[in-house]
Amino acid sequence: MEKERETLQIWKERVGQELDNVVAFWMEHSHDQEHGGFLTCLGRNGQVYDHLKYVWLQGRQVWMYCHLYRSFERFRRAELLDAAKAGGEFLLRHARVAPPAKKCAFVLTRDGHPVKVQRTIFSECFYTMAMNELWKVTGETHYQNEAMEMMDQIVHWVQVDSSDLGQTRLSGTPAAEALAVPMMLLHLVEQLGEEDKALTSKYAELGDWCAHRILQHVQRDGKAVLENISEDGKELPGCLGRHQNPGHAIEAGWFLLQYARRKGDIKLRMHIIDKFLLLPFYSGWDPEHGGLFYFQDADGFCPTQLEWDMKLWWPHCEAMIAFLMGYSDSGDPTLLKIFNQVAEYTFCHFRDPEFGEWFGYLNREGKVALTIKGGPFKGCFHVSRCLAMCEQILEALLRRLGPTPVPSLGGSK
Amino acid sequence: MEKERETLQIWKERVGQELDNVVAFWMEHSHDQEHGGFLTCLGRNGQVYDHLKYVWLQGRQVWMYCHLYRSFERFRRAELLDAAKAGGEFLLRHARVAPPAKKCAFVLTRDGHPVKVQRTIFSECFYTMAMNELWKVTGETHYQNEAMEMMDQIVHWVQVDSSDLGQTRLSGTPAAEALAVPMMLLHLVEQLGEEDKALTSKYAELGDWCAHRILQHVQRDGKAVLENISEDGKELPGCLGRHQNPGHAIEAGWFLLQYARRKGDIKLRMHIIDKFLLLPFYSGWDPEHGGLFYFQDADGFCPTQLEWDMKLWWPHCEAMIAFLMGYSDSGDPTLLKIFNQVAEYTFCHFRDPEFGEWFGYLNREGKVALTIKGGPFKGCFHVSRCLAMCEQILEALLRRLGPTPVPSLGGSK
Repeated sequence: MEKERETLQIWKERVGQELDNVVAFWMEHSHDQEHGGFLTCLGRNGQVYDHLKYVWLQGRQVWMYCHLYRSFERFRRAELLDAAKAGGEFLLRHARVAPPAKKCAFVLTRDGHPVKVQRTIFSECFYTMAMNELWKVTGETHYQNEAMEMMDQIVHWVQVDSSDLGQTRLSGTPAAEALAVPMMLLHLVEQLGEEDKALTSKYAELGDWCAHRILQHVQRDGKAVLENISEDGKELPGCLGRHQNPGHAIEAGWFLLQYARRKGDIKLRMHIIDKFLLLPFYSGWDPEHGGLFYFQDADGFCPTQLEWDMKLWWPHCEAMIAFLMGYSDSGDPTLLKIFNQVAEYTFCHFRDPEFGEWFGYLNREGKVALTIKGGPFKGCFHVSRCLAMCEQILEALLRRLGPTPVPSLGGSK
Repeated sequence: MEKERETLQIWKERVGQELDNVVAFWMEHSHDQEHGGFLTCLGRNGQVYDHLKYVWLQGRQVWMYCHLYRSFERFRRAELLDAAKAGGEFLLRHARVAPPAKKCAFVLTRDGHPVKVQRTIFSECFYTMAMNELWKVTGETHYQNEAMEMMDQIVHWVQVDSSDLGQTRLSGTPAAEALAVPMMLLHLVEQLGEEDKALTSKYAELGDWCAHRILQHVQRDGKAVLENISEDGKELPGCLGRHQNPGHAIEAGWFLLQYARRKGDIKLRMHIIDKFLLLPFYSGWDPEHGGLFYFQDADGFCPTQLEWDMKLWWPHCEAMIAFLMGYSDSGDPTLLKIFNQVAEYTFCHFRDPEFGEWFGYLNREGKVALTIKGGPFKGCFHVSRCLAMCEQILEALLRRLGPTPVPSLGGSK
């Protein structure tokens, strides 16, 4: 137990310090004082190399700042909240392409003109997370109204009718469900229902539906988590059907662990740990160079995505959260061991002690391939969420262990 | 001169043999005897790992087979022509999503149902190339009618009105011209006008327009070829504007060299060699590991594309063609030296002596990253076109040098 306490204590200090460094990076380099919102296309040293504003990343950074402000004494700083509010106002003013329609852009110009729209629900999901978290911090109801209205729209797209998203279904297009959709929706259910009994109850059935859908992605007699399945829960033909993303499956794992905890379902928890944590970890970890592969093919064919063997920051962030949470929920020491292995790889390869924040993209061998700290898909989110959640879980684990025992005097040789 | 003759002779033999191997690979593994057309998702040893049919690759393989049949005595084989015709018929039956509308799918199921459509002109361009080449080989006019009608549609989309392609222009979307569009169109002008005075004359003005548009992509006082520029020929802001693809610029180079030759414009030829061959080669060649980078940023920022530093087969194929053609047209020995450098790297790193065809995707260090021989963007096209064109250019160069001189007897020590 003392060995365990020591491990937890060391990591708590490391993640806490790193969280401070990472937040400092974004506070120093990303705030757009002129238009509100965040400049997230940042080079290694924080230099802005593009002024485009990706809506996912705007919403995520608003969420992250509010979450830090709300959850950590040391981040209860006006600077953070002001930047989050300015980001929220930017989203309110500009995210929707043709208000009052709810569809949000994927990317905006610095001053808020829409550049591109995606035919998916994700911009809207991060918009909802941002608004809900702003409400939780400020108590201003217009934020929550925005969140609830957008959530209704998202649920409508997913469960009732997605035709106004503009996705084209042709006679050969398979009716596929991407793992990301029920995952994202389950995460929203968790977000909106947090410390809110009325909303927990309102979304209980939706949460069950999402969990059921996610669990269907375990295929091949429990031997593989597949990213895309048919609408009736079967494997799809070809590369699309065999496509795997180990870090994404592991992320789904911790979303599901939260769900199982809420349900008090221990059998489900064991299933999740088995199928969404251990299975993708053992198949997705590179035995030669360490780190999680980005993509794999369930039959072992070479994936067709050029970046398949790269090591990306976010799967490693998600794995740190998932294994620590799994350990915290189950007490299984294997999970702490894997957390330790993933966290060591991650801290060793992705951190940039010189300029702060983490690199996002390594080649298979673990060498930095892209020096950017932020880009179209990397902002102030995965790293800081991972560090913040790990700090909180580690703190709770240490609390559970009780105070450090006073060494008995004179007893040891 | 004897050194030069030797270089040319050696390469002529190497590319000729390699062309035989490469064509044999596709003939053995890719023909779909059941539905016609080609299975191009092939693993290292030719095993089919997906049955999807990408329309670009269907059109390209039809074109390639016809071109080989028409241009090389040793490829005048019924097998090749039959497969090309079966591919052509497959395209005629299935490529268009909603006939009589001209829009073609991007990818089809094995039996020809449309899976995805791209909001671009490229499926239609390769369709046109296939049909025109089928006509050239068979003399059957319905192929040429198809080609001409599709060409009219493409020109309409590019020069008159692209609205029915379905591209969404939002208030922040920059009006950008991608280098690929005038390039592809110039290439079609060359294809349709080849040995056809009436069509050469019909498309002369269009060819001038394309060349002018391509030349506008030389920006920054002649110091950079940029992939995307504004519609009025200026640099665009941000990453989009700074985006460079050295292999693509070099490919544009040989398209333009053909144009300059047709025009008899020697000054233009010098400009092309300078800006579209040497400039992208010197900036795009990796000084550390050799090979052409896939993407670069004109200001030296790190590109945001994960694959930016990978070495892809096709830029190297295009560079082999361009430098050999540039040498053939100008006689500048620097260009032969660069051809030699590129071809050595290419033959050494991309060839697969064990199973035939070439690997397509190497990491920065030149190690094979994807073992596939064919996939969504790699089929029977760039490698065989490169080898076939190089063989023809080398043959012509050797012919120009005249017969190998008989060594003078007793004259040398």
